[in-house]
Amino acid sequence: MAPDLNAQTAKDMQQARDKVSFDLQTIRDHLFADRRNWESFEQIERILRKEPVFDKSSRDFIGRIEAYKRALAITKRLTELQRLHQWTSEQAAQAGRILSEALPITLHDLAFEPVLLGQGSTDLVDQYWELVANKGIQGCYLQTELGHGTNVARLETTATYLPETEEFELHSPTLTSTKWWIGALGKTATHGIVQAKLILPRGKDVGPHLFLVQLRSLEDHSLCPGITAGDVGPKAGGGSAALDNGFARFDHVRIPRKNMLSKFATVTQDGRYIQPQNPKHSFGGMMYIRASMVTTAGWTLARGITIAIRYATVRRQGEPDDRGLERQVIQYPSTYYRLLPILSYSYVFIALGHQTTKSFTALTERIGQGDLGYLAEIHAMLCGLKVLVSTETINGLETARRALGGHGYSMFAGIGRIYADYLPAATYEGDNFVLDGQVVRAALKSYNLLVSTPDRPLGLHSSYLRLLRTGTLNRPVISAMMWQEHAAIIYLLEWRAALSVKSAAQNSDHPDAGINHRLSKAVTEAFVATQVGAMVSDLNQLSPNEASALKDLYLLYLLTTAEAALVDLLAFGLLQRVPDQTHPTRDLRAAINVVCLRLLPNAVGFTDAFSFPDWSLDSALGVSNGRVYEELWKRAQLEPLNQTDTTPGYEESLKPMLAEGRRIASLTKSRL
Amino acid sequence: MAPDLNAQTAKDMQQARDKVSFDLQTIRDHLFADRRNWESFEQIERILRKEPVFDKSSRDFIGRIEAYKRALAITKRLTELQRLHQWTSEQAAQAGRILSEALPITLHDLAFEPVLLGQGSTDLVDQYWELVANKGIQGCYLQTELGHGTNVARLETTATYLPETEEFELHSPTLTSTKWWIGALGKTATHGIVQAKLILPRGKDVGPHLFLVQLRSLEDHSLCPGITAGDVGPKAGGGSAALDNGFARFDHVRIPRKNMLSKFATVTQDGRYIQPQNPKHSFGGMMYIRASMVTTAGWTLARGITIAIRYATVRRQGEPDDRGLERQVIQYPSTYYRLLPILSYSYVFIALGHQTTKSFTALTERIGQGDLGYLAEIHAMLCGLKVLVSTETINGLETARRALGGHGYSMFAGIGRIYADYLPAATYEGDNFVLDGQVVRAALKSYNLLVSTPDRPLGLHSSYLRLLRTGTLNRPVISAMMWQEHAAIIYLLEWRAALSVKSAAQNSDHPDAGINHRLSKAVTEAFVATQVGAMVSDLNQLSPNEASALKDLYLLYLLTTAEAALVDLLAFGLLQRVPDQTHPTRDLRAAINVVCLRLLPNAVGFTDAFSFPDWSLDSALGVSNGRVYEELWKRAQLEPLNQTDTTPGYEESLKPMLAEGRRIASLTKSRL
Repeated sequence: MAPDLNAQTAKDMQQARDKVSFDLQTIRDHLFADRRNWESFEQIERILRKEPVFDKSSRDFIGRIEAYKRALAITKRLTELQRLHQWTSEQAAQAGRILSEALPITLHDLAFEPVLLGQGSTDLVDQYWELVANKGIQGCYLQTELGHGTNVARLETTATYLPETEEFELHSPTLTSTKWWIGALGKTATHGIVQAKLILPRGKDVGPHLFLVQLRSLEDHSLCPGITAGDVGPKAGGGSAALDNGFARFDHVRIPRKNMLSKFATVTQDGRYIQPQNPKHSFGGMMYIRASMVTTAGWTLARGITIAIRYATVRRQGEPDDRGLERQVIQYPSTYYRLLPILSYSYVFIALGHQTTKSFTALTERIGQGDLGYLAEIHAMLCGLKVLVSTETINGLETARRALGGHGYSMFAGIGRIYADYLPAATYEGDNFVLDGQVVRAALKSYNLLVSTPDRPLGLHSSYLRLLRTGTLNRPVISAMMWQEHAAIIYLLEWRAALSVKSAAQNSDHPDAGINHRLSKAVTEAFVATQVGAMVSDLNQLSPNEASALKDLYLLYLLTTAEAALVDLLAFGLLQRVPDQTHPTRDLRAAINVVCLRLLPNAVGFTDAFSFPDWSLDSALGVSNGRVYEELWKRAQLEPLNQTDTTPGYEESLKPMLAEGRRIASLTKSRL
Repeated sequence: MAPDLNAQTAKDMQQARDKVSFDLQTIRDHLFADRRNWESFEQIERILRKEPVFDKSSRDFIGRIEAYKRALAITKRLTELQRLHQWTSEQAAQAGRILSEALPITLHDLAFEPVLLGQGSTDLVDQYWELVANKGIQGCYLQTELGHGTNVARLETTATYLPETEEFELHSPTLTSTKWWIGALGKTATHGIVQAKLILPRGKDVGPHLFLVQLRSLEDHSLCPGITAGDVGPKAGGGSAALDNGFARFDHVRIPRKNMLSKFATVTQDGRYIQPQNPKHSFGGMMYIRASMVTTAGWTLARGITIAIRYATVRRQGEPDDRGLERQVIQYPSTYYRLLPILSYSYVFIALGHQTTKSFTALTERIGQGDLGYLAEIHAMLCGLKVLVSTETINGLETARRALGGHGYSMFAGIGRIYADYLPAATYEGDNFVLDGQVVRAALKSYNLLVSTPDRPLGLHSSYLRLLRTGTLNRPVISAMMWQEHAAIIYLLEWRAALSVKSAAQNSDHPDAGINHRLSKAVTEAFVATQVGAMVSDLNQLSPNEASALKDLYLLYLLTTAEAALVDLLAFGLLQRVPDQTHPTRDLRAAINVVCLRLLPNAVGFTDAFSFPDWSLDSALGVSNGRVYEELWKRAQLEPLNQTDTTPGYEESLKPMLAEGRRIASLTKSRL
């Protein structure tokens, strides 16, 4: 009697849960940083799941217009719920994370509102605050243009001050000055903050500044005079279909003088420019978004790895196991070796997100008190973190998707959508390859300072450079045992960063073409490794079972990072083979296998701790009860191509083609 | 006066073409393997470009049903043109490549027809051949099921022989036995070849065999009795939207005995099973598809890199160059270091495709003569090549897309579509991680044979193992100069493969979890490197200018492969630092930079040689005249969201939400 593979899926999932060695609630509280966050999450989720408008069953089948309309309906209901339940903005953000939909309103919350608050004059903020907070207007932030992204200094849009009427005239002088990619600009936003070159009365260009502009009528939503705007079109992989990234051109559009965001720089009535006291103040907005990207990356990766680990647990394929069933796919070394590191990355990024948000809040306070000491260094580190987490999250999602095998290519698997939506994280908020350069510049600057003044105290983000102080510290001692000790691997990764910076500084006359990316990675990974060290120390508050499971997960993160750093470690002579012992690379890889095998029985437990409800995860392969085949079948029945009796296009194309083919075939036959 | 960035794009493209050092026609002939292939290409392209039904301007905006109907219309016209111009099947395939559309008919040509021809009895082929060749019926090949992909032995669909009526009864006993993912099955195919377990009269299961089944009526295209079928739903990233990958279940469907594909195994009238003489004969089909995947990978990557190099040539951003214009993006080391290696991969894969097809034809002849000597080894190498080219092509396409910066996320950029369509190449025709295992098994077998019988002659695909014969050959001598010599790098990569196999064999009791993938890569790359060596020798037929340009391209391929292999090269002690000299890794990376700088002026020329017409490439960022901004603008105007005056969903959602927000804001204000 052949086993019922469909029934087996649910059994496999249950057995995987039975095997989990830790208390789920403890791990969950750890992930959510606090029991109260978890309770708030649960409460909000209960509210959201009841709302029919949040149902996702149509998502895979609708075009952009329907997707956009659905997003507006969701936004409306979400705003109502926030009001009804008096959610804080943090709770509203949590609701958004559970919903997991690309919504135009995100740009209002994440870009328009903070920029207005952070850069607008008190008068302007007072005038608009209630409208903004209550969504009485809908805002967007217009920075990038068709011709310019990262290089803000070269933006072409102009804002010319006209003292006679005390107005600015916004203008798009060229095709390439068209604002482009602006989230929520295409169809949604009524107002926008425009980044434009400020031109003073005698033609002096004092560079980019910000201006608040009304884009659409509050009566009928039609575009205001002089403004041409629309949606920029579909995105690669169908990503963020519901998001109306837009374009806009300004044809001599006038706005009152007070609409300049003038917290730091102003233009007087008669057109004199008053410079900002400290231009660094304006760093805040971008830094805040980058800090929040760490947390987002962690939870995004968590979705992908939940799907992949659950499916790999119930999918059986290939060699028979001891019960004569085919083996669970997750039991194959080539599978768990791909999936478990991604699990460790999501845990590390989530914890790192907590730490980063805390440091960022502390920094903001210090800046408020006028202390700009480590600003540049922290800015560089946030650049590095943004590059690291977005790169690893994109790679991890695709690795997880591919580990699903053939079914991973189905939209119903769910990872494809997460990937397509997340993909632009590599280029927005600074293209990763441009940001690498900023990390490298900061690291080389710190190194040069250390060389010129060796006693200078090092900041948290460059403490690895202490290893270069002559005569202070020895190179790591290499042994097979070291791969079981978090501290030893962290130390090794710090050495690798230090020697990378030193080597780059010494060879700066002849850099190779890949140096920036390698160096940025080495420096950022050393910082993250030390942060992981702090996470491991914090685990002592937990009971032994839970602490040891998490320690293994963090260890796997460090080991995987070290394996990916092997070229550096070997080339810098940090991993010399000890005579009569196995090669350190073999020891390292053996250690990875050992820790993977320890983690394996808890894999499903670790993903359960993320607590994604099925309706939110929206994946046929990631259903919590394991019944993946039933789910694929059910979803396929909803495909619009299956709703008509006749094949679409049959009469016009298929039928005449087949008929002609048969006619010719019969002719040939009769000639035989 | 600011420069006109839009006009500059066309100038930059022209200047890039003016700089090309080689004769375009020579490089083109080289790529097409023969002047006649190029002429045929040109002739076909001229015919195709005139056909309105092949127009691509709607592609980015339509849903699956429209996309499917469009694909049928294209197929009908393509079939008419083939008949009209009497194209050979190779010419028809070339037309398909120029068209570059995912069409259901592909599965008829690539799977149904060759399997029928290769495995069907003469009678069956005679009966159906004219219908198949003239598209009087439309076929598909039903292998994978909901519950099984790679592991064919465990497929659940049954074909039970009933001697009383001399029929087979096809049946799907379980949910998981549902045929799934079958290209063209969902809506198009009238006939299918079904892989099913053959059950003999007394219940004996003799494993999977093939059966021809009519699926749909030739009168009205309705499904035949007992058959449930439909489309499996949309794919990740919107890939292959026009392709109706389908599912099917069989409820005791009867077919005549002669419909078993019985070239190698048959069932007699009374139900006795006659076994195949040599089961290896059935390898052919899958091997043919894998061999053709090398060529496809090369041309697919060629599309992506053409787009990326053209855009990076006209996109200017960041630091000013000597004329005060911002630098062309392609001039940044972090850009050309990413793009030029992809260019070299596409050239190598295309040439490798020619070689592989030739070897495969030779192999088929030898097999026809009963010589099965190197079959297993060639089978393993085709597995390795399939893994290598699909992995590198997917990576290369995404690297190219990301190098486009923010605009790369636009569907109009074109790479996103190519990527989403190509993506399943990693899992179809054998999941790459499963195929790795087959490569490794074959390599270890060859190694063990070498150990037991050192004098045994080595096949072409394992000639790297000669290095392990004691006392014959020395390890490579390392110097800075070696990185300029193709032969030296090939030798190094062969040594790496040999030592990898040796080490894996010696440690086979304690394999690490990543060994299969690393080893498969090492072995395959050694083989490809030797093939590149042959390509370089062939260049001597060309004039010096063209030969030297291509030599550099092949050198870059080898250097990049060596850089990616650095962990192995260092861990096996193949790259020891020579005292008082720079570290070999630095020399290698310096060499990459040097060859990139030599190739850079020819980059646009190399992509022009691929000869993609604009209408076929269908990319706003890859237009041959360089006017990328105009093209993005034009395409955005076609977005359906921009065709209505009012924002979709405004009345239902946006208007009430904004009104309510304004009402509450005004209340709060009045309370102040």
